[in-house]
Order: sequence, then C-alpha cells, then structure tokens
Amino acid sequence: MERIYNFSAGPAMLPLPVLEQARDELLNWRDSGMSVMEMSHRGKEYSSIIAQAETDLRELMNIPANYKVLFLQGGATLQFAQIPLNLLGDRSADYVVTGAWSKKALKEAQKVGRAQLAASTEDSLYTRLPAASEIKLSPDAAYLHVCTNETVHGVEMHNLDFLPGSVPIVADMSSHILSRPVDVSKYGLIYGGAQKNIGPAGLTLVIVREDLLGKAPVNLPTMLDYAVQAENGSMLNTPPTYSIYIAGLVFQWLKQQGGLAAIAQTNIAKARLLYETIDASSLYHNPVELSCRSRMNIPFTLNQPDLDNAFIAAAKARDILSIKGHKMVGGMRASIYNAMPMAGVEALVTFMKAFEAENE
Amino acid sequence: MERIYNFSAGPAMLPLPVLEQARDELLNWRDSGMSVMEMSHRGKEYSSIIAQAETDLRELMNIPANYKVLFLQGGATLQFAQIPLNLLGDRSADYVVTGAWSKKALKEAQKVGRAQLAASTEDSLYTRLPAASEIKLSPDAAYLHVCTNETVHGVEMHNLDFLPGSVPIVADMSSHILSRPVDVSKYGLIYGGAQKNIGPAGLTLVIVREDLLGKAPVNLPTMLDYAVQAENGSMLNTPPTYSIYIAGLVFQWLKQQGGLAAIAQTNIAKARLLYETIDASSLYHNPVELSCRSRMNIPFTLNQPDLDNAFIAAAKARDILSIKGHKMVGGMRASIYNAMPMAGVEALVTFMKAFEAENE
Repeated sequence: MERIYNFSAGPAMLPLPVLEQARDELLNWRDSGMSVMEMSHRGKEYSSIIAQAETDLRELMNIPANYKVLFLQGGATLQFAQIPLNLLGDRSADYVVTGAWSKKALKEAQKVGRAQLAASTEDSLYTRLPAASEIKLSPDAAYLHVCTNETVHGVEMHNLDFLPGSVPIVADMSSHILSRPVDVSKYGLIYGGAQKNIGPAGLTLVIVREDLLGKAPVNLPTMLDYAVQAENGSMLNTPPTYSIYIAGLVFQWLKQQGGLAAIAQTNIAKARLLYETIDASSLYHNPVELSCRSRMNIPFTLNQPDLDNAFIAAAKARDILSIKGHKMVGGMRASIYNAMPMAGVEALVTFMKAFEAENE
Repeated sequence: MERIYNFSAGPAMLPLPVLEQARDELLNWRDSGMSVMEMSHRGKEYSSIIAQAETDLRELMNIPANYKVLFLQGGATLQFAQIPLNLLGDRSADYVVTGAWSKKALKEAQKVGRAQLAASTEDSLYTRLPAASEIKLSPDAAYLHVCTNETVHGVEMHNLDFLPGSVPIVADMSSHILSRPVDVSKYGLIYGGAQKNIGPAGLTLVIVREDLLGKAPVNLPTMLDYAVQAENGSMLNTPPTYSIYIAGLVFQWLKQQGGLAAIAQTNIAKARLLYETIDASSLYHNPVELSCRSRMNIPFTLNQPDLDNAFIAAAKARDILSIKGHKMVGGMRASIYNAMPMAGVEALVTFMKAFEAENE
C-alpha cells in the first residue's frame, strides 16, 4: 500500500517531506554519527536543533519577545491543571465552554483551584459560540479560558471579538495552532498538544507572557512550574528531544510553504470544498453555525445512520482512513490539518459524492 | 562520518537494528500507509504496538500480574513529585541518598509532602552504599526510596540486602533498568526515564504494585494519578506514541539478545574491561567502592586534570564522544548502556592505554 489519506483527529498526518528527511537522517544526523534520538540534550548538536525550532516558531507565529516558548510534556490535559496552578495565585478563573475540550479544561481547573463557568453553549449542543452578552465574568478572574478550536464538535473561534478584553485570555489551540496567523499579543497564554499541527505526540507547546509567571505555590512540583521551565530553557530535565526535532522540521516545512498566511489560504480552500460538498448534499449534514465552523475538524452525519459502517468501509477501500466521528457526536469527522493535502480532501469529496449517488 | 561511539549518560546510543527498523518503517508501518507518528492512538494499528510493547516488557522483566505497567511522561524528575503525591496518603516516606539523583528525589518529595532522610553517603562523596545499621527509618513511612544506580556518581546497588524489608521499596532505576534481571516482586514501585536503556526521551516507565494505588488526594491533577492512568491503559490522553514504539523495538531487540540474563553477561564483561583498565593504570582513577561500582555509568578522573581537555579532544578524533564527566564530579564518565557494543568499550580502553602511554 502507498501512503493513505489519514483523517484522524490526532495523532495525524505529517508532511511527507518531513517524514522523508527524518528517515534519511535517522541513523546519522548531519554527519554527527548519531541519531537525533541518541544525542545528549546538553550537547552542541541538540542545542542547535532546539534553538532553531524555537527561532522558527517565533518567526512563524511572530511571537513577541516578552513571551516565553516552552516545550513541555503531558499534553493539553496536563495543561488543564498546570495553567490554573501557575496563573491563579489567590484568584479564580473564568471558562467559556464551547465543546468537549473546554468542558474538560474547566472540570480539571476546578479540581486544582477556583474556576467558574463564564458561558456555555451546551444547550445548543455546541454548535455555536456564545454572544458577548452571555459571558458572565467573575470580579477576581486571573484569566479567561477558551478553546479556540473544539476538535470533537468542530467549532472554531475565527476571531476574539465576542470576548471581553479585561483579563488575559488563555487559549487551548491544540487542534488549529499554526493553521493560520494569530495575534499572539492578544493572549496571555497559548497552549497545545503537538499531535495535530506541530509534530509527534508527547510534546506540548506553551507560549506564555512573562508577566503572568511567578504565581506558582511553593508546593507545586518543579516540573510543572512554568517559571522554572522558562529559566531552564525547557531543559530542567531531558525534554522530549526527538519530538522537538520533528516539530522543528515541521516549522521549516511551514516556512517553505510561505508561512501561516499562505497555509491559511490552503486551509480555507480545503475546508470550503468539504463544507460545500456537505451543504450541497442531501445525505450529509454539519450542524455548526456558519460563522464558527472549524477549518480543521469537520464533523458530519449521514441522514441515514444505518449507512455509517458502509461509508467507513467504502472510504477505507479508497485509502481514506480514520473518518469515523467521535462517539460523543457520532457520524463522521474529517480532520484536515496542515499536512492533509488538497488532493486528500478532493479524494474525500469525490468519494462522498459517489457514495451518495450509489445510495440514493 | 560513520556512526560513532557515544558514551553520553542519556539520551544515549540505541541498538543499530532498532534504528534501522525505525528508518525502514518511518513512512509506512507494515503496509498501513502511515508512519507510526501519524497513527491515532486509539486505532487498531497503534493498539497492537503498545500492547506488544507491554507484553514484551512484562516477559523481559518477569513482571508479576499484580503490577501495573504505565507509559507516562515528564521523566524521573516529575516522578520525584508524582510518587509521594500518589503513595503517601497521610504518611511520610524515607529516602536513602547515595548520589545526586536520590538527593534530588528527596528534595522534590519534601516539596510536595512529608519525606525524611533515612541515610546519606554524602560525607563519603557518594562513593559507597550505606550499611544497614546506618539507615534510620521513620515509624510511619509509606515507602523507602532508593536510586539503584546513580548516573552521576557511578554507584549501583547490586542487591537490596542492606535495606530493611518492612516497607515497600520505591526505586529509581532510570540508568540501569533492563541491564540485568531484577526481582520485581521485591519492589513496590520501579520507575525510570526511557532515555538510557529503554528508548527516546519523553517516555517515563512506571511499574507499580496495584495495592499501593488509590491514595491520591482529590486535588491531584488527573494526569498525575497512577490509578487513573492504570484504568485507562496509559491512554487518559494521547501517550508519547512514537517513543513507546521505539521502546517496543528495543524490547524486541533485547529478547533477540537472549533477554536480561544474557545482556547482563555482556554488561558485566564490558564494565569489567573498563574497570580493569582504570585500576591497572596510574593515570586513571575511579573512587567508588568495588562492591557498588556501576556497570552502566563509570566515572573516572585523570590524575593530571590539566590533561582533561586533551583527553576529550583525542577521544573525539577516534569517534569516542560525550566522554566528559558531570561537572559535579569532574573528569570523565563512560556510560555504557545496553546498546553500547563491546567493540565500543574496546575502542575506549585501547584509546585510554595509548593516551596514557603518550603522556607518561
């Protein structure tokens, strides 16, 4: 079998040139006589790799100098706790819940500190964003937490206009980071697991404004203290060296694509093609309001759910994999991250149209 | 340059056949059309990879059925906090300090709970193990913590006879796990970072006896709760999938070598050759008592420290890398983990003898 089109929500496809370079360098990185996996994280070879990765990421995202870039571990789920533990001090936090992931983030924050629900669209089955008037802020909030792209429900915040600007915004960008330009200066903290648009699972990216640091309690495990990690250049202990290396290759690939503005145009075109196919069909349906449909994770149901298994099997026969939807919403989900080529989306919509025609 | 002999303390050499297989499968794992890095962790392909890794590890270490195997993140340093947070309940813990790493473990445990120094060999510059009579236990200890191989100081516990058997033993085995058979049933918990004898950095192995679980406080971050991780098969969220895959290849390589009893014989022979060379020389010196010298990390000093830089440079010219000692003890350190072939140790001792002859 050749390489397939993998629509998994994550881990997900990586750019083919990245994988090819990783393969070619696997036994011997740049005449060092070592695999990157074998390098001391304190050696000059690896120091150059992690420094280049941070430089390229700062350039891609235009990260201001007063933000720290941390390469951590544990995924977004550990961040759900680590963020309040680091940022709350003696205050509380407000959470806007727009899907499964922000709901989990609130629950975990409430486990380790004070956090309150500022708004929820659960009553609308997470098919929309809240209006500004629905968001109830607490008087002593240290930050306002949002998930800017809900991986399960396919709801994306294309701008922050509906959010109050009075407190730092903390954003889980796991499933759409690097998919388009963002103004980092509008955020207090941005975080995400790597396994969608950054690189392999096991790496977690945190971008945090310096002035928010230093509020960690004295009994916080040292590894979870952003300030300590920042002081140590993410090397308090051995970081996930190989995952950072692959992420660095992805950053270089993104620069070669023309950066985030260029990749955003491709992502817009990919998403448009798929949504147009869904909306034009009488078999497929996406329930999310037009203004907040995700460009990365596109859930859709079949109006005849008894066709679900046939759809998945027929897709697989065309090398279209991991198209089954999350059990919370059912149906299908196409995750079309940066590394999914337009050809993959074209193959999917061609198949969807054929499947619909065959099942009229 | 061909592949070099890398004596780094970690990340460190991986077996060449493991790297070759990883390279050959990098773009397309077993006709799946995907890299392992791209696989959904919930898919059938990856499920088979992680299940096989656990099965092989259980077989290699002969892990009893009442022990859970957890594939976690954050390295031993996060475990320094995670262990007391999970195991203490309302009790304290005792720590035997035999080098830099067990000292760090105690300090971190004291940050998050009650822990006391049971014995220390710091006065002997960490060149020996404490006698049984030196170990002062507290009456309510939930466990006794040891580091069974001190990576910086080169001190290894070849047996546990000097330890009291009254409380569960918690062992940091980061730098010698899988180097020889151990009787897992003698331990309450065994842990280690992967980046020495297991696989790439970013994976942390925890092997814990089931009855020790369930004492976590309600406000423990969910990701840090062993019981929750065990219930979820280390998949509360996306695990470090690629690192686990490489670890699985290492486990299979170890089985092909004849398992831990066989690799231990090779490790004994490698260490003996190096210690004999050091002890027979008038230039090199290792300060550790014979009974507790490490087979994995062998620090040695030059009696003329002004030759240190010349030694390092001349070694590098012979493709012998990362031989410089840790700054805490100075001199040199040869880390000779499972993947360091006998030929590498032979190259090192040949060089050491030639260097000594040239500098008489």
